[in-house]
Amino acid sequence: MASHHYGLILAGGRGTRFWPRSRTKTPKQLLPFLSEKTLLQETVERLRAAIPPERIWILTNEHLRKEILRQLPEVPREQVLAEPAQRNTAPCLALASQLIAQRDSKAVLGVFPADHHISKPAAFRKYLKPAFRAAESGKLVTLGIQPRWPETGYGYLEFPRGIAFGDFQAHPLTSFREKPRLEAAEEYLKAGNYCWNAGMFFWRASLFLECMRRFQPKTSALLASLPALDARGFASKLAAVYPNCTGISVDYAVMEPASKEGLVAGIATADVGWNDLGSWNAVYELAERDSLGNAARGESLFESATGCFVEAHGKLVALVGVKDLVVVDTPDALLIVDRARAQDVGRVVKALESRNRSDLL
Amino acid sequence: MASHHYGLILAGGRGTRFWPRSRTKTPKQLLPFLSEKTLLQETVERLRAAIPPERIWILTNEHLRKEILRQLPEVPREQVLAEPAQRNTAPCLALASQLIAQRDSKAVLGVFPADHHISKPAAFRKYLKPAFRAAESGKLVTLGIQPRWPETGYGYLEFPRGIAFGDFQAHPLTSFREKPRLEAAEEYLKAGNYCWNAGMFFWRASLFLECMRRFQPKTSALLASLPALDARGFASKLAAVYPNCTGISVDYAVMEPASKEGLVAGIATADVGWNDLGSWNAVYELAERDSLGNAARGESLFESATGCFVEAHGKLVALVGVKDLVVVDTPDALLIVDRARAQDVGRVVKALESRNRSDLL
Repeated sequence: MASHHYGLILAGGRGTRFWPRSRTKTPKQLLPFLSEKTLLQETVERLRAAIPPERIWILTNEHLRKEILRQLPEVPREQVLAEPAQRNTAPCLALASQLIAQRDSKAVLGVFPADHHISKPAAFRKYLKPAFRAAESGKLVTLGIQPRWPETGYGYLEFPRGIAFGDFQAHPLTSFREKPRLEAAEEYLKAGNYCWNAGMFFWRASLFLECMRRFQPKTSALLASLPALDARGFASKLAAVYPNCTGISVDYAVMEPASKEGLVAGIATADVGWNDLGSWNAVYELAERDSLGNAARGESLFESATGCFVEAHGKLVALVGVKDLVVVDTPDALLIVDRARAQDVGRVVKALESRNRSDLL
Repeated sequence: MASHHYGLILAGGRGTRFWPRSRTKTPKQLLPFLSEKTLLQETVERLRAAIPPERIWILTNEHLRKEILRQLPEVPREQVLAEPAQRNTAPCLALASQLIAQRDSKAVLGVFPADHHISKPAAFRKYLKPAFRAAESGKLVTLGIQPRWPETGYGYLEFPRGIAFGDFQAHPLTSFREKPRLEAAEEYLKAGNYCWNAGMFFWRASLFLECMRRFQPKTSALLASLPALDARGFASKLAAVYPNCTGISVDYAVMEPASKEGLVAGIATADVGWNDLGSWNAVYELAERDSLGNAARGESLFESATGCFVEAHGKLVALVGVKDLVVVDTPDALLIVDRARAQDVGRVVKALESRNRSDLL
């Protein structure tokens, strides 16, 4: 029965907030942060008991494909798909759903971002079976994360009042909420029937393609014109067709309109240790720290320093009389940022772009 | 007449507060900070119009001698003396005075630290002639620096009340004062007859040696037993004798007792741009800064950063949302210190010593 379950991993992001570790050719998902494995490798590893590598598909871009093949030799090469252009998540999920459905008309897909961290993989895996089951029953299913603070940087999923986090039940979803203001986020947290939207979905490929035909007919028709993946000329046809697809997220394109028709269900997870690793500060928060709140990868020397995170290799880093800094050293670039400003590291990347310093990106 | 004037440059210090730039084999005085020349080279250059290189003697240690010969090819090799052991300033000044006096019994010496910065060398040079003249008249002469703030890290020279800074006169010195508490330093500043003791001296070699015989008879006798510099066996005899000399500063050993006998005179300089470069913060203060108070050697990118100093080569340094940091990058060590704590960098050196990391020292 389980043989119709597929894992679709979204691995095309840039992750500029992890510069200078993350670069164009090795973005966040292709780097190790909290173990020796990269976030992508951890994502595949986490699914392995439920979905073996031969049923894993990866969506990425041409820049990253080679490195991904290197990191995941166990995944069949043709299942690592490179989008010819960035068109957000709806077209690429439709493309993958179509290609998988051509091989297995009963395919049920689980969609997972490659750049999140889940510290309790066993707890997480318990949600896979009920999620696939709900998808098999004909719903577009989303996994919600129990909110731990009133985060304003995430979208929220509204569940019916009275649900319990960790009940393993698929509930009809009441609404999708965009990134809220702080007051709204605080209300969501208090209300107890809202989850963080972590971008994890489960659906029958056939249902998702039907929804695309209805809600995104242009993109759907363009993709329907493609030959089979193993047919001659697939790549060139894809390169010609794909850039004409409408760039839109799967939330806006499919989930929200489908939820209005009662096609969407949600499962509210309890603590699975989910963290989207939004910035270096998140890595600091997850790292082992000493009694003064310092954490280091590589040799460091803290002299009256507190709350600092250091990542440097092949070099001793000495911090004297400073606090709450993130220090990331690489052979050609060094970043020093106040932890409270870790979200702004992307600005450095923008500034380097405007200086035409692609060598550092 | 001027041919009896010699320059004696003290170049044996460690300068650990400039780690990681300064290392055991390239301490502060052998590094460039504010120009392309090293502080030692600037010291020799500053004297050149008054004292040509053939009358320059350098006092240093065995670790540094080779690098000094490389930096100062114009100074005769045998005039770069390596002390066999660290015995503070009195023994080494006595040794140099004795060796120079053996060649020129009328020698008058000017003593200059190699690790200070003087931003107005022409103004400084105007004090050399009156200082040498006062020394020729039979005094131990010291050059005082007009205090610019109530510094508690320097010793002070007390002049007679009513003197004027920059009067070019040699005054009998009233007393030497050790590093004061803040209240005392503030009084000195207000009183107007105190100078910073910058460790610059002028004397007849014969007078200084006579004072050593009287105030430091043991060291004086030990050194008197040495053969001439060009005699066979000088180096081995020096190595045997020198460690037995009493380690003591020239201030305590000679200047203070001599001042009580009226043998010491001082000249109070006006602004010569003197700076002892006591820490990275002093380098920051002297560096050219942008409108946000940032200064950089090497390519930098400041994003909401203020008051920072960066020294890094072959690498871009990005600072985001931080202030008042000193960042010094080298191939094997990186220092990040709050500017207000720059004095504490020496603690890093101590910590590395206790970790037996001589490779980083």
